[in-house]
Amino acid sequence: MSVLDKIDFSKSADGLIPAITQDADSHEVLMVAYVNRAALAATLECGEAVYYSRSRQELWHKGATSGNTQKIVDILVDCDADTVLYLVKQHGGGACHTGNRSCFFRRIKADDLELI
Amino acid sequence: MSVLDKIDFSKSADGLIPAITQDADSHEVLMVAYVNRAALAATLECGEAVYYSRSRQELWHKGATSGNTQKIVDILVDCDADTVLYLVKQHGGGACHTGNRSCFFRRIKADDLELI
Repeated sequence: MSVLDKIDFSKSADGLIPAITQDADSHEVLMVAYVNRAALAATLECGEAVYYSRSRQELWHKGATSGNTQKIVDILVDCDADTVLYLVKQHGGGACHTGNRSCFFRRIKADDLELI
Repeated sequence: MSVLDKIDFSKSADGLIPAITQDADSHEVLMVAYVNRAALAATLECGEAVYYSRSRQELWHKGATSGNTQKIVDILVDCDADTVLYLVKQHGGGACHTGNRSCFFRRIKADDLELI
């Protein structure tokens, strides 16, 4: 039995579960994406974060072209086994396609979005 | 225009987006749940984390019965505005229904799940 059999991919029709990605050192949440069984298997295999791109509908080896790869330090699993948490070392400029280190660079303030 | 109009709830058929909940002080990721527009509105209104329970199909004011409420310190929004990050002060015993402080109390190790 593989550890993949212990993860519950059944709660969405497309077999996707959220993957939260956190900097292993600073504990900053860098991004949230999705994985299916194949993406998680690929992540375990290559030791770098692989997601499933909902827009392109294919496996997405983060940073494969940009160099902004994410080396896996640990993968945590939640109580319901339907969410994974990637603890990573972020390489390159950052996790976000906007150039920000984290995708979470805005906060809700006074009924609007404000840059952090 | 409300800030709620700037959040993209359209990517899932049920209008739910992930809400990541992180301890504002330790930066530990405590849990991942889901919010719809009404849950996020309720969170902003009451200053404590409100989610949408997929199993019960109703708003879920976290800790309303157990006392394990989560006081909102900040709400961050990601680049695509389709995920929110609650920074909270966790009251009571913890975030997880198992009694653990965080729902992420297991890691993948040697093709199995291991308690942290």
